[in-house]
Amino acid sequence: MPVNIKDVAERAGVSISTVSRVLNNGKYVKPEVRAAVKQAIEDLDFVPNSIARSLVRKKTNLIGVIASDISTSFFSSTLSYIEEEASRNRYNILVGNIKENLDKELNYLQVFKEMQVDGMIIMHEMMNKPIERFLSTLTIPVVFCSAKPSASVNCPSVNINDKQAAYDTVKHLVSLGHRNIGFIGGDTREISTGQHRYAGYLEALADAEIAVNPDWIGFGNLKMQDGYDIMCSFLAREQLPSVVFAVSDDMAVGALNCIVDNKLRVPEDISLVGFDDSGITETVRPKLTSLHQPIQQIGEMSVDILIKMIEGNAPGVKEIVLHHKLVERDSLRSLL
Amino acid sequence: MPVNIKDVAERAGVSISTVSRVLNNGKYVKPEVRAAVKQAIEDLDFVPNSIARSLVRKKTNLIGVIASDISTSFFSSTLSYIEEEASRNRYNILVGNIKENLDKELNYLQVFKEMQVDGMIIMHEMMNKPIERFLSTLTIPVVFCSAKPSASVNCPSVNINDKQAAYDTVKHLVSLGHRNIGFIGGDTREISTGQHRYAGYLEALADAEIAVNPDWIGFGNLKMQDGYDIMCSFLAREQLPSVVFAVSDDMAVGALNCIVDNKLRVPEDISLVGFDDSGITETVRPKLTSLHQPIQQIGEMSVDILIKMIEGNAPGVKEIVLHHKLVERDSLRSLL
Repeated sequence: MPVNIKDVAERAGVSISTVSRVLNNGKYVKPEVRAAVKQAIEDLDFVPNSIARSLVRKKTNLIGVIASDISTSFFSSTLSYIEEEASRNRYNILVGNIKENLDKELNYLQVFKEMQVDGMIIMHEMMNKPIERFLSTLTIPVVFCSAKPSASVNCPSVNINDKQAAYDTVKHLVSLGHRNIGFIGGDTREISTGQHRYAGYLEALADAEIAVNPDWIGFGNLKMQDGYDIMCSFLAREQLPSVVFAVSDDMAVGALNCIVDNKLRVPEDISLVGFDDSGITETVRPKLTSLHQPIQQIGEMSVDILIKMIEGNAPGVKEIVLHHKLVERDSLRSLL
Repeated sequence: MPVNIKDVAERAGVSISTVSRVLNNGKYVKPEVRAAVKQAIEDLDFVPNSIARSLVRKKTNLIGVIASDISTSFFSSTLSYIEEEASRNRYNILVGNIKENLDKELNYLQVFKEMQVDGMIIMHEMMNKPIERFLSTLTIPVVFCSAKPSASVNCPSVNINDKQAAYDTVKHLVSLGHRNIGFIGGDTREISTGQHRYAGYLEALADAEIAVNPDWIGFGNLKMQDGYDIMCSFLAREQLPSVVFAVSDDMAVGALNCIVDNKLRVPEDISLVGFDDSGITETVRPKLTSLHQPIQQIGEMSVDILIKMIEGNAPGVKEIVLHHKLVERDSLRSLL
């Protein structure tokens, strides 16, 4: 017969309500009583029924996470930090991997709500009306991680300044003597990652009085194959760019492979710069120069803010913007 | 005021128990009645309380997944397939990323049990007594995915034949004229991935009457850095191996980078062969020859068997062994 809370109370020599208070981390329990109850739980191998307990506590200690695509190096790293930080705070995560599919996103959001998760983290920013409507009626906290919600959705976000990051990167390329600067961008329907990075690129060119050359501009899904294909289209042009800036490391690595497969060298023939500074930058040769996002802090802060909101200590944060910086490795050369 | 099941019943013009049967996917509901209830649910934006429902149905549609380390290319790919297959079958997954930490594994197993998951998938095979004890008393199904439980634990597993895979790979190297064959192995405390792959390597050498050279044997944690360091230790020996076989693609890529950083060429100076055939084989140059594990099928079959067991259609499977094969790319040359 399964052990129940009454058995635990008897063994510990306390009342059932005391055991319940210990299980729910309630106040007003003396340390020695708490210890005795925990010992009894261990002795009897008692597993509290968390579902029944959730009904009482109205808390599941679950966080639902919407991941754009965990097979990319940026998202798998971020997710790993989110999971660790959640686990440190005794929360568990439910992962919904939507692969850019908005129907799947809405479905996961509904499932998470049904599961009564305590909060959600969304790592994807493209939205449609049903998702906006869903989020605006939701009563549990939601944090956007490395993504920004559309204006009608009132949720905090943790990001870098994507436009400034792209601007600073391109300005640095100009300072090294580059004027033929190609760009492999993301989906410009995405507010921050796509539009802002592209805007930063254009503004830096304008400030340096460099004309935009559409031959060297392409947009992809942040994954390797798209970087490869777009770079190959650049190589088919009459004139080559001296450097290509890709807004994800995975696309930059795809571009690198296209260049190498076409018997050209990086950085001697074409320089390359990536974005994210994820693990893959050190995986390839030459090692990739990349715009550093503080992935660990982005993941951890998203969890920390969410938990503060869940626990009623909402700091009233609207947006957290973290520092970016360019990390120089071997894929970028100076023309000076 | 929140919408409740009574409102749905009124709107659909049916009884509360009919709504409940629809919600629980019960039998004996006419298609047109089911459609009417679903329409009412949609019209009213009704979200059923899944926790309360779980108490009635004794089913959460949750699968707990213990991942060894989702930052490696093999596990992140497998997890992605597990998630997709679960989602296709309307299950959601809870992920516990244990980073090889057995205390963390036991904790996640307990949390999953407490959450009343319907079943678990374990992608890690090292065990200790508390984990064995926990699993042997568990009443919900568990499937080992790309891992084998110790003999005392009676759970089905989905794997390739690791020993045979390593044996076949080394035999192929011998057939190409290689006799100086280095080996970068995994943790030999792991029953299948570690011990069996090493045993296959040794047996293939013995069958070819090649003496084992301990100078060219090292063991790591399947990750890139260990492959790098072990390869660098091989390069410090008096004589170099003509080929190195690493039992994970990530370690093979680490080895590749060590070789390139030391101004040697792959495969001209040293050939390399990886294991898993994960996405990273095509990310690097030269592209990596690798022992193919059918990652997608391993992930999907693990989920399918688990769901069959959850739903009481247990096929009585003890072990599923899938086909392996060597996929040749550019990192291995023939000496003949």
